[in-house]
Amino acid sequence: MNIPQTSFPRVVIIGGGFAGLAAAKGLEDKELQVVLIDKHNYHTFQPLLYQVATGGLEPDSIAFPLRKRFNDVENFYFRLAEVQNINSETNCIETTIGNLEYDELIIATGSKTNFFGNKTIKKYAMEMKSVPQALNIRSLVLENFEEALLERNLEKRLALMNFVIVGGGPTGVELAGALAEMKKGILPKDYPDLDIRQMKINLIQSSGELLKGMSKNASEKAEDYLIKLNVDVWKNLRVTNYDGETVTTNGEDHFKAQTLIWAAGVKGESINGLQQECLVERANRFKVNEFNKVEGYNNIYAIGDVACMPSENYKYGHPMMAQPAIQQGKLLARNLLAKLESKKLRAFKYNDKGSMATIGRNKAVVDLPNWKFQGVFAWFVWMFVHLFSLIGFRNRAVVFFNWLYNYIRFDRETRLIIRPYKKKNSNSF
Amino acid sequence: MNIPQTSFPRVVIIGGGFAGLAAAKGLEDKELQVVLIDKHNYHTFQPLLYQVATGGLEPDSIAFPLRKRFNDVENFYFRLAEVQNINSETNCIETTIGNLEYDELIIATGSKTNFFGNKTIKKYAMEMKSVPQALNIRSLVLENFEEALLERNLEKRLALMNFVIVGGGPTGVELAGALAEMKKGILPKDYPDLDIRQMKINLIQSSGELLKGMSKNASEKAEDYLIKLNVDVWKNLRVTNYDGETVTTNGEDHFKAQTLIWAAGVKGESINGLQQECLVERANRFKVNEFNKVEGYNNIYAIGDVACMPSENYKYGHPMMAQPAIQQGKLLARNLLAKLESKKLRAFKYNDKGSMATIGRNKAVVDLPNWKFQGVFAWFVWMFVHLFSLIGFRNRAVVFFNWLYNYIRFDRETRLIIRPYKKKNSNSF
Repeated sequence: MNIPQTSFPRVVIIGGGFAGLAAAKGLEDKELQVVLIDKHNYHTFQPLLYQVATGGLEPDSIAFPLRKRFNDVENFYFRLAEVQNINSETNCIETTIGNLEYDELIIATGSKTNFFGNKTIKKYAMEMKSVPQALNIRSLVLENFEEALLERNLEKRLALMNFVIVGGGPTGVELAGALAEMKKGILPKDYPDLDIRQMKINLIQSSGELLKGMSKNASEKAEDYLIKLNVDVWKNLRVTNYDGETVTTNGEDHFKAQTLIWAAGVKGESINGLQQECLVERANRFKVNEFNKVEGYNNIYAIGDVACMPSENYKYGHPMMAQPAIQQGKLLARNLLAKLESKKLRAFKYNDKGSMATIGRNKAVVDLPNWKFQGVFAWFVWMFVHLFSLIGFRNRAVVFFNWLYNYIRFDRETRLIIRPYKKKNSNSF
Repeated sequence: MNIPQTSFPRVVIIGGGFAGLAAAKGLEDKELQVVLIDKHNYHTFQPLLYQVATGGLEPDSIAFPLRKRFNDVENFYFRLAEVQNINSETNCIETTIGNLEYDELIIATGSKTNFFGNKTIKKYAMEMKSVPQALNIRSLVLENFEEALLERNLEKRLALMNFVIVGGGPTGVELAGALAEMKKGILPKDYPDLDIRQMKINLIQSSGELLKGMSKNASEKAEDYLIKLNVDVWKNLRVTNYDGETVTTNGEDHFKAQTLIWAAGVKGESINGLQQECLVERANRFKVNEFNKVEGYNNIYAIGDVACMPSENYKYGHPMMAQPAIQQGKLLARNLLAKLESKKLRAFKYNDKGSMATIGRNKAVVDLPNWKFQGVFAWFVWMFVHLFSLIGFRNRAVVFFNWLYNYIRFDRETRLIIRPYKKKNSNSF
């Protein structure tokens, strides 16, 4: 991998998401060599992917080039590669561009869509964990309408205009809301020769509440908002299969739909090589102790979505969200430095700053530790927090301008089919 | 194609580029049915493609959704399709989504890259006529550097960092300049562990001058600027082949390069079906009279790049650029309306407003009819003209902000490999 051997210990970080970036940042300009490996050359701001998928933001404004982030950091190396295996005996990782030895290894590979073993759903469903996947959804939605325009068979036309979103977490809720706003403000203008009332947005949640993990107020209000936006919310309904045409459920309702977006779960993006016992089976997350050290290893750590640190309040590990990832990354960097200086390590304690979701224009729900609120103000708080969490001044400015423009003009202008999805029909990159 | 038959005459426009858009605009809200067909659902602002290819602008800001442009126009229909054949006897076009009869047909399909019959070059060269192609170049350039970083063989590394641009017209000159600025300001920071001095940018022009068609001053100054930016300008040299590794020329110089960008020529993107005689053979443009009527037909017109209207000053037709296209589109719309009202038609006369090219920061050349100038002021004029030629306030604002940002920060921030090119190695969409 062409990385010089120096007298400094080498810390290898796999993954440039929230966790990996936070760790890398904490290790800047120390007496260390830091190697960051990612399969993309950019950081993805995942919380805004749904806006890319619905034409509200350009992909380039929620992605940030990783090299630029560490432009002026000494002893820092970035490599564009996928890690295929960890050899803990030789302290070496195997990647698509060769092997690399490490002194300390940080696994921050995040999570991937969890289809819970259903291969048919996996084959036909759309997912939304990366920029290319969000762009695929953007293309598919628009392609569906272009096709619906030509379709004289009513049943087929309805299927093209029927969108099924599985999973009532933040991703599903936000995507459903954004699609509903497209239906309301944009699609009738873009497709005057199509009856957009025939478009359906179905949000299916297996449990009895949306936004599980948030307050009851937030959950109910979100559902309220969605219903006002004409989203069909289905609770206590489980999708059992999807063959590209029919969505079958464990209830009496089936759906004829050309589009199913699967936001019903994620699992850790683990890496091969470590002993089986250190993986939590279903969640596919590495078991770590309170210092994020992977069970059974001394110099291998996992942080963020791929780490499972059971604690009193979080029996099955912390929620797979940005906040725990960032906090773990930060603390791990500190602890690594402490370890090298033989100082005392600090155990991780999650500081839950709250969570929020936006459903649409002026409609958001916010749960802060001591204050839960919904509506216009919540929506502004949501925007403010997301804007300032973005990396890079350019990205912030472009996103801010787009939001302002979209708000004033009731518009989402990047409805471009730059990479046709149906023609290629490949979900592979 | 599901377009209603009305009592109004139907005008079908093929192509939503500069020419087609101008024609469509001129026919808005008249007693006509207008159908615009394009293979993309967006208009591409081609003059700025090179900035997308070099990470200066996001693709979404130089593309504009065609449907939105005609949102509130009555009797206007857009269809996403490729036209495969024209049947002039039945007044019908055949497309990928079915047939459509027309009363008046406007061909505004523009141009495509001309490889002058060389299939090997076509196979291995990059082209830059569309947004996806520009994104391919963006990916490839960055992928080359990621690979160069790992390459220990000097010759191979040099080939990865050797960029050959064929064609010294505006596209070639602007792209060479933009790459040179990346080399100067950005790549050394992004790849501190790579010797960026080894990067070479070669601009090869078959004739003795760059920017043919512009003034001698402009041509010489452009060359000057390029040389100052460390571009190797080769004149009177013709590329004869490229096999993906070696660029062979008719001179003594050969180049080992992993990237060859072909900007050496365009030809009309003609459509099958019309009689062979109405096509100018090599240029592949439809011969039209001074009313843009295709030779031998009464209700078929061609405008823009795909039209060849020989005149006193332009023996081989007008230059294949935005200005003639826009002017022809505008006039044709007027003439069509005049024809329907049996009024007198106006013959086309090209009003040459001048031409310009930008080479880099503060470096541009402008030829106005009565004033030719170069340098900082020319650069501002270039920016101003391009900014206001863009469609849509959002696009203008985002491009303006990006330029401001890039200028102040000496940066080009959208250096993202969102769609890897090498992995896929497909130029097909």
